[in-house]
Amino acid sequence: MNSYPESLTELVDQLKKLPGVGRKTAARLAFHMVRMPDGEAGKLAEAILEVKKRLSLCSFCQNLTEKDPCSICRDPHREVYQLCVVEYPADASSIENSGAFHGRYFVLHGNLAPMQGQGPESLRLERLKELVVSQQISEVIIATNPTVEGNATALLISRILEPLGVQLSRPACGLPVGADLEYMDPVTIRKSLDGRGPL
Amino acid sequence: MNSYPESLTELVDQLKKLPGVGRKTAARLAFHMVRMPDGEAGKLAEAILEVKKRLSLCSFCQNLTEKDPCSICRDPHREVYQLCVVEYPADASSIENSGAFHGRYFVLHGNLAPMQGQGPESLRLERLKELVVSQQISEVIIATNPTVEGNATALLISRILEPLGVQLSRPACGLPVGADLEYMDPVTIRKSLDGRGPL
Repeated sequence: MNSYPESLTELVDQLKKLPGVGRKTAARLAFHMVRMPDGEAGKLAEAILEVKKRLSLCSFCQNLTEKDPCSICRDPHREVYQLCVVEYPADASSIENSGAFHGRYFVLHGNLAPMQGQGPESLRLERLKELVVSQQISEVIIATNPTVEGNATALLISRILEPLGVQLSRPACGLPVGADLEYMDPVTIRKSLDGRGPL
Repeated sequence: MNSYPESLTELVDQLKKLPGVGRKTAARLAFHMVRMPDGEAGKLAEAILEVKKRLSLCSFCQNLTEKDPCSICRDPHREVYQLCVVEYPADASSIENSGAFHGRYFVLHGNLAPMQGQGPESLRLERLKELVVSQQISEVIIATNPTVEGNATALLISRILEPLGVQLSRPACGLPVGADLEYMDPVTIRKSLDGRGPL
């Protein structure tokens, strides 16, 4: 039984489709939107439409951009010989925010997850290979996530790129800074010990 | 430092204003919306605008409605002598979904929280008093939340309505059905023991 007015039910239904948003959160968000000033709600709706209208993929790195090529690929100060392969645009943003990488990216928009119907063909790996050759890339950091799918994806990419003679690497696994050993999972602890370095 | 395209930053900023949505959740939702089919994102934006356009307050119960008076206040099968006072429209929905109440509602759109600048004048209590008199209401269930603010609000309402000679009550406090005594707070346990009943 549902006692909401029709337009409110529709909004709750649409919000429920978002990741991590269940029925209760959707209702809470919807009631909040009802209470928001009209202008604020309008801005949110507008922002959703704008993002769909203005964003496309950079023809070089496949990252989200409003202008092709994207600002990173256009930047003459980036190292052109380095490429960092990530699963999703959000991953590239995180690495970019760390300030630790100065090359360019390649966004796969997925990983190898055959159980979810994502095979190698969905990852534009031909385009990646083509880029490495045409742009004379000499180092590729395969920064897919340290998960089963991410590792499988990294392995596949290394198989494809190895014959080209480029230097391949993966980001180190270990304890996140600020972590508490007490609560760390055993696999991470093992990785951090295997990869231990001098003081 | 922010490496998102402008329209994506704007969407993240708008989403961050929602309750319980921080920077990370906003980014996750935004990236999801980017990946959604255009039609789905459009439906969500449309639903937000529609809810703002179509919903208004019922002139009787102050609940959200698309048609004034609302479907509950228009329903001839509802008990007209009973009124249930709640803080927010979502509370009325929850009670309605329980199927345990057959009277009409009065929505305060808030509670008494002087520290947050919400005094009695924001709760339309004059309108409530007027309704109780004009509609010859004989029983008022004050279903504000069992919190400090909700209890204070209930007390204020009872002071206002007592002189009218209507029967006043509050929903019972006790253990929620399915609860585990081990994890229940002491105040709730005390309430449930104080209010114990025969088997």
